[in-house]
Amino acid sequence: MVCKIEKQTGVAFILKKGQNLKVIDPQGEQVSDMVLFNANDVREKISSGKTLDFEENLLITKGNFLWSNRSRKMIEILEDTNGRNDFLLAPCSPETFQIMYKNPKYHPSCFENLYTNLAPYRIEPDDVPTAFNIFMNVQFQPNGKLSVDPPTSKPGDFVLFQAKMDLIVALTACSAEDSNNGSFKPIHYEIL
Amino acid sequence: MVCKIEKQTGVAFILKKGQNLKVIDPQGEQVSDMVLFNANDVREKISSGKTLDFEENLLITKGNFLWSNRSRKMIEILEDTNGRNDFLLAPCSPETFQIMYKNPKYHPSCFENLYTNLAPYRIEPDDVPTAFNIFMNVQFQPNGKLSVDPPTSKPGDFVLFQAKMDLIVALTACSAEDSNNGSFKPIHYEIL
Repeated sequence: MVCKIEKQTGVAFILKKGQNLKVIDPQGEQVSDMVLFNANDVREKISSGKTLDFEENLLITKGNFLWSNRSRKMIEILEDTNGRNDFLLAPCSPETFQIMYKNPKYHPSCFENLYTNLAPYRIEPDDVPTAFNIFMNVQFQPNGKLSVDPPTSKPGDFVLFQAKMDLIVALTACSAEDSNNGSFKPIHYEIL
Repeated sequence: MVCKIEKQTGVAFILKKGQNLKVIDPQGEQVSDMVLFNANDVREKISSGKTLDFEENLLITKGNFLWSNRSRKMIEILEDTNGRNDFLLAPCSPETFQIMYKNPKYHPSCFENLYTNLAPYRIEPDDVPTAFNIFMNVQFQPNGKLSVDPPTSKPGDFVLFQAKMDLIVALTACSAEDSNNGSFKPIHYEIL
């Protein structure tokens, strides 16, 4: 059954060890931030630093694993029809819009959509780590300069994951203008 | 007063808002992993994801700030005589040596040296974030491939930081062969 994440919202759910998760960009050019926690001990969680270290690459795609802060494999990427994701940048937060977009007004954010959906699992805002940003197109130059470019994902592109432990998964349909080529669209997912 | 961190060890101390911290590589080619916590609330801590996002660069040096998970500036880099640091890779841990070095025996690690020195501040191993790796030379290719190369730091090179809030600072003299061109040396620091 395909589940829908409305634009600028999020969800959290349990994914059991061995289950597959398909995250789909139904309209194209839409990012989904994902964080993972060990369902049996939420102090263990996804780690960008451990993943980049063990996978020895900035660009995480098919064949790579996402690792935890305890140096264990949490999930494997079995398929990736688009092939561009980001694991450098933190989820957009209220401060992202205040500081980087110079927008002092309320703005929905992945950070809020992650921590509000994770609250029932007793996960607090301070516990939200750097997310694996599915379909996010962050380009880097040889001098290190980073830019957030429009996603290259086309309608129907997906990333297929397989859980290596029982997980709490939180997913968003990202709320930041720059990450999604200026418009906000839904994300679909399916547990297989 | 110059304080010495012996090879393959670490320290933790308080740095008050406005104080400067000079981290020195006395012999050259030696990395120092640094983590930061808000001294008044250790749930606020250094964030690679927030720093790379706000500074819009993979290479953090003079003029950049290190930001917290709450999107606040923790420390500023006032000087950097070497100019190459890393903020991608997690501190070397026992699993680094088991998995990447294929070494099943006990090996000192930055992770152990961070959490043992942070224990008196009630900071636990799971709370240790991705460190700012001073003098660490991680090269990235256009295809994302990462390599840990010998540091470019020469004897006496230093990075000078200024605290933007009261901080708990933990520092190591890194324990990983690949990060330090195959030998282990001390790190010096000075609070100014």
